[in-house]
Amino acid sequence: MPSEKTPKSHGRLSISASLQPRDLMGERPRVKGSWTAKIVTLFPQAFPGVLEQSLTGRALDQGKWALETIDLRPFGIGKHRNVDDTPAGGGAGMVLRADVVHRALRQAAMGTPASRKDWPVVYLSPRGKPFDQATAKRWSQAEGITMLCGRFEGVDQRVLDYHRVEEVSLGDFVLTGGEIAAQAMIDATVRLLPGVLGNEESTEDESHANGLLEHPQYTRPAEWEGRPIPEVLLSGNHAKIDEWRREQAENLTKERRPDMWDAYKGTAD
Amino acid sequence: MPSEKTPKSHGRLSISASLQPRDLMGERPRVKGSWTAKIVTLFPQAFPGVLEQSLTGRALDQGKWALETIDLRPFGIGKHRNVDDTPAGGGAGMVLRADVVHRALRQAAMGTPASRKDWPVVYLSPRGKPFDQATAKRWSQAEGITMLCGRFEGVDQRVLDYHRVEEVSLGDFVLTGGEIAAQAMIDATVRLLPGVLGNEESTEDESHANGLLEHPQYTRPAEWEGRPIPEVLLSGNHAKIDEWRREQAENLTKERRPDMWDAYKGTAD
Repeated sequence: MPSEKTPKSHGRLSISASLQPRDLMGERPRVKGSWTAKIVTLFPQAFPGVLEQSLTGRALDQGKWALETIDLRPFGIGKHRNVDDTPAGGGAGMVLRADVVHRALRQAAMGTPASRKDWPVVYLSPRGKPFDQATAKRWSQAEGITMLCGRFEGVDQRVLDYHRVEEVSLGDFVLTGGEIAAQAMIDATVRLLPGVLGNEESTEDESHANGLLEHPQYTRPAEWEGRPIPEVLLSGNHAKIDEWRREQAENLTKERRPDMWDAYKGTAD
Repeated sequence: MPSEKTPKSHGRLSISASLQPRDLMGERPRVKGSWTAKIVTLFPQAFPGVLEQSLTGRALDQGKWALETIDLRPFGIGKHRNVDDTPAGGGAGMVLRADVVHRALRQAAMGTPASRKDWPVVYLSPRGKPFDQATAKRWSQAEGITMLCGRFEGVDQRVLDYHRVEEVSLGDFVLTGGEIAAQAMIDATVRLLPGVLGNEESTEDESHANGLLEHPQYTRPAEWEGRPIPEVLLSGNHAKIDEWRREQAENLTKERRPDMWDAYKGTAD
């Protein structure tokens, strides 16, 4: 079931040309061996999207990581380049065909290591294991990643088995497609690559590493709308400040994330 | 700490003009009373981003929902429009100022209901409660939402308290900013609005509603790379197909999501 909205950058005449991955590096320098994300998608025009902004965008401009999209459409069947069909056994929705996805994944695999440790191949789906900071860290230590963005009801299981595809979920909610999930996961991964974060940002996740939510933050002005900054923070007494922050972090974690609090107590005991 | 990359669409001369929210509806029709997302961000050019594609893009074009960005930068202080300052009590990173964020949120609040049930005001942060399908459903039943996208170390707690801001997290991972999280949450919410999903997609989340991960899917061809579709799916016996699918869904849930499986068994007993 193709989208009713024709992708702007992929007119019918360009079908054979776009079988090649689209290198989104354009005029950007590309550092040899830099971490690369290859995205198999029906919406290549959605990339780089948010990833073009801020830290990830600056690092992309500097060639510290690279991005390629592989349009799934030209790998489709027949004149209409169909990529999906009805589910075997019945049911709602449409399922991406094994043969179509296979050809796109084979294209993506060119020039990448066969080991899934060195180059994970993932499918973004609510059926997957939940994505977390440990997954981002693992992926950032690979040479790159191939991501298959789903749409519709799913993907033929045989092609997932054949290519040893890892299914990963952004969270317990349903998205219209995998493209947003791909951007979120790439963002979380890229910021862990060497040299992407500046010094001033590099410690910000340490408070995550300790298993607690972060304490509240305050900055100038010292009083705003009748609300002063908590006195201890202006005391200059660092031991007291640390104590106050830890207490705040613990209370917040207890209140908002009993699951994290239980895990934290387990390690602290 | 302003980004080193100057936002393309916001030159210095436009500062006073862009104090007004930017209505991203452009030439799109805008249905009166349609659900509206207002995004307070330092990267307004990141929107609509992925939301312009596919189902959410079609619904945006049809005015079934609306999108406005409010650039935080022009609300900043002094010649350089500073929006942040160092954390009170010390520490890494920069904190968004209460007074700056306040002015942007006050601008966003114009013409919106004061009740947070009718119009949630949320801050996207790893400190928040995890976003899930129930949150998406709740938000889709409101008239709209205001989202504050964070960057840097955080936001002065006083402005979050003052505006009764709900903190929500996309998941247990760290992003460079809230913009991707905002797009993911809007996508999950918008697809629940009346008339956004076509009939063919509307039942796809029923398998989520039953508390299990979805069974594997197959489609034509019947045999691919020596791998046949499981025989039962081609049998035409719907009772057997349902039984097979449930068994597959249960096994998958046990294996990948013991937490969901425990919850499922709890309700089934």
